[in-house]
Amino acid sequence: MRCIGSCLVAVAIASGAVGLMATASARSAADTPSTFITKIPAGYRDWKLISVAHEEGNLNSFAAVLGNEVAVKAYRDGQLPFPDGAIIASLHYRFVSSEENNKAFGQAQSFVAGDPTNVQFMIKDSKAYASTGGWAFGHFNQDGTVAGEAVMKTCSPCHAKASRDSVFTKYSR
Amino acid sequence: MRCIGSCLVAVAIASGAVGLMATASARSAADTPSTFITKIPAGYRDWKLISVAHEEGNLNSFAAVLGNEVAVKAYRDGQLPFPDGAIIASLHYRFVSSEENNKAFGQAQSFVAGDPTNVQFMIKDSKAYASTGGWAFGHFNQDGTVAGEAVMKTCSPCHAKASRDSVFTKYSR
Repeated sequence: MRCIGSCLVAVAIASGAVGLMATASARSAADTPSTFITKIPAGYRDWKLISVAHEEGNLNSFAAVLGNEVAVKAYRDGQLPFPDGAIIASLHYRFVSSEENNKAFGQAQSFVAGDPTNVQFMIKDSKAYASTGGWAFGHFNQDGTVAGEAVMKTCSPCHAKASRDSVFTKYSR
Repeated sequence: MRCIGSCLVAVAIASGAVGLMATASARSAADTPSTFITKIPAGYRDWKLISVAHEEGNLNSFAAVLGNEVAVKAYRDGQLPFPDGAIIASLHYRFVSSEENNKAFGQAQSFVAGDPTNVQFMIKDSKAYASTGGWAFGHFNQDGTVAGEAVMKTCSPCHAKASRDSVFTKYSR
């Protein structure tokens, strides 16, 4: 699930696709029905922790992966595939060195979450999104804009590589 | 707040203090009243996310920092010092490379949370723990044992270096 968002961002950076970003209001009705999430799920910042991750390279990101009640219950129960209604959120931040922490440690070793960069979602509906493994995907930049179609089309092919119902992230106890 | 736990672990590793670990039941009544937390706060795994962090070096750890309702409300409101009743939890995991994610990316760049190593807590009670900045500290190893007194005594001096009411971790939006 590092790929949720991270694959997208990698593509965006590699292809210069940042220029393809469009505002949510600019998304046309032609996208419906689609497998793109165009509205941020309510209350996601209050969801429970699934796990954390870090990508090096161009991404240089920290991720906190959260899940709604349906998703977290499925993780804890070991239920695969995920049931309809499961939503997984990946909150991405810059991966930055912490001067204050390094001083406390007496050496450079601490990295913390810097500015937020984007948040990405996967919503499970096995019928509505059957063409993309049962998942809809969404990528929202920090300024509220959504990723363009060229970027969004890269989500499901990448997630299809994950061995657990298109989800990369494992649950951390 | 990387220091919550991380400082402790650093000390434990540097001093070989792992041998000082004692079981919870082995902690004597002489510790009371003290500023050591000897019982894991209930339900902490369901708490809301504060932020994430990573320590290099001997620690090589991933941290997910969670807070109870009092702590998260204070963070969101920008309330300092933290009110009594605030509890902050730092869940630590091994920082490991992800083969599956690297394959999806086509290069080695992904790190995820491996096995859990310990969980640490700070509980705010400005009167009961006045001698240590108003906070009690706790460190619980994955096997349920608590850190020994030699390790525990290093918590508050390290956290006293933090500029925000003995707390290192900042809230991530």
